[in-house]
Amino acid sequence: MSLITVGTMAFDAIETPFGKTDKIIGGSATYVAYAASNFVQPIQQISIVGYDFPQEEMDELKKRGVQLEGVEIVPDKKSFFWSGRYHIDMNTRDTLVTDLNVLADFNPKVPESYQGAEFLMLGNLMPKLQMSVIDQLTKRPKLIVMDTMNFWMETAMEDLLAVLKKVDVLLVNDGEARQLSGEFSLVKAARAIMNMGPRFLIIKKGEHGALLFHENHVFFAPALPLEDVFDPTGAGDTFAGGFIGHIAKTKDISFENMKTAIIVGSAMASFCVEKFGANRMKEITKEDIDARLEAFVQLVNFDIDLV
Amino acid sequence: MSLITVGTMAFDAIETPFGKTDKIIGGSATYVAYAASNFVQPIQQISIVGYDFPQEEMDELKKRGVQLEGVEIVPDKKSFFWSGRYHIDMNTRDTLVTDLNVLADFNPKVPESYQGAEFLMLGNLMPKLQMSVIDQLTKRPKLIVMDTMNFWMETAMEDLLAVLKKVDVLLVNDGEARQLSGEFSLVKAARAIMNMGPRFLIIKKGEHGALLFHENHVFFAPALPLEDVFDPTGAGDTFAGGFIGHIAKTKDISFENMKTAIIVGSAMASFCVEKFGANRMKEITKEDIDARLEAFVQLVNFDIDLV
Repeated sequence: MSLITVGTMAFDAIETPFGKTDKIIGGSATYVAYAASNFVQPIQQISIVGYDFPQEEMDELKKRGVQLEGVEIVPDKKSFFWSGRYHIDMNTRDTLVTDLNVLADFNPKVPESYQGAEFLMLGNLMPKLQMSVIDQLTKRPKLIVMDTMNFWMETAMEDLLAVLKKVDVLLVNDGEARQLSGEFSLVKAARAIMNMGPRFLIIKKGEHGALLFHENHVFFAPALPLEDVFDPTGAGDTFAGGFIGHIAKTKDISFENMKTAIIVGSAMASFCVEKFGANRMKEITKEDIDARLEAFVQLVNFDIDLV
Repeated sequence: MSLITVGTMAFDAIETPFGKTDKIIGGSATYVAYAASNFVQPIQQISIVGYDFPQEEMDELKKRGVQLEGVEIVPDKKSFFWSGRYHIDMNTRDTLVTDLNVLADFNPKVPESYQGAEFLMLGNLMPKLQMSVIDQLTKRPKLIVMDTMNFWMETAMEDLLAVLKKVDVLLVNDGEARQLSGEFSLVKAARAIMNMGPRFLIIKKGEHGALLFHENHVFFAPALPLEDVFDPTGAGDTFAGGFIGHIAKTKDISFENMKTAIIVGSAMASFCVEKFGANRMKEITKEDIDARLEAFVQLVNFDIDLV
């Protein structure tokens, strides 16, 4: 009766206009877990790492209620490694290095103890692997949320379209929504993508917020205007983690509750960008989160008299 | 006891990916008047036109409660003319022609009958002329709102800085806020600009909405996601007209009421872009406006339990 999260656990090396890191912990499933574990536990993680992934990191995740039975440890290979450099606007980046390492052989296995989970968060990963997890589940979760990226549209479109038919919520950014649909208008793009399978579509626009589409409804969540965006790495995964965390906590998959979940996701993402990697996510408390949610209420709340 | 609006009344010729117009009616004061007159009348217009400005347009404005005593008609010159072409993203455009014509000699005069106005909307215009209107007023309005553009930052910065000291609310777009402040972060830019004079700052981000800053507060109003943006010309002026129209109607210059005013401005702008020029603004009814405002409530309204 819990949340399964699937994705990468990895090392990143990041350069931004504000600084530079050596290898630090990253990966889509890592960020999802750090965000979602503020709202729901246990989290049943499915991923793969190499011999070099630090035990302290595993221990920290366990302390946050993240079960690691589904995380394969390959004893003779290195963990997935990504390195990138952000441009001054922080919205665009160049990939410097992608070392697949263990990811090249990833064949996710759903442990027996994970069966029966109500919620499934498919982090950004090869669509075939996302499909494999869905296929292994003996009971379909109440809600399947899927993240993806432009790379899979270019290299594995057929597999991607097959997974889209199986999921309830798709998360993409605005450029990816346009690429996937062939429509420039996001309203038209949303309609086209919902015709591919998912009943709900979330279009992430980075510093410009996020849109939630469902049938003829649309909801908008802003990003919090910040003094500085220090490092956007993982912000999208953190957003997804906050979103699915709130849904799994409340067990309510209505459009109305998804609006709140998107605000929660935006709040979590606004923390993530304040420090390198997941560092800020490791610090924040329930009080920090509540104060940030209150800031979002203040940011968009207005009174209008339509009489 | 009313609203003075200052700006251009002009001809525009517009090319977008969706079509092309011959000379149609445009100008910042025209758009402001069409938007604001839905909320407050009379509107006391200050502008300048040539012999070629159509009488039917003047008649239509009069019917909407726009007083034209302050609109100078130059019998031997043509009206200001601008022509531009929008790129596919509709956020950027090339100027093809700018014929100043009557605008070259514009020396705005505030008619005696306009004295005592409670609200002043300074549409985008040479800063010296905006200052001249402020100087002519025998009683300072309750609220002075000013629009401007990057061109004046490049050609008349000193004059612009002088006007900024005299106004309560400044409206600029995100690029202009960065240019004026020298700050990339909009939060930092806002702080720097409010130190230049205006207590309130509105940063317009086009399809990405608008931010209202005041002291340490920030409010965000989204743009309505539209199937198609047909022609963005005048959307910023229409936004300003809706904003000042709501303020002048309610006579409430609090930050809380400005939030609502920004939503009203966003709603009016969402109509403006649906057809060429001001055509859509001439059609809409109170029912259309109320329905659009309700759409904005739906767009951003969410429930959250912070207990």
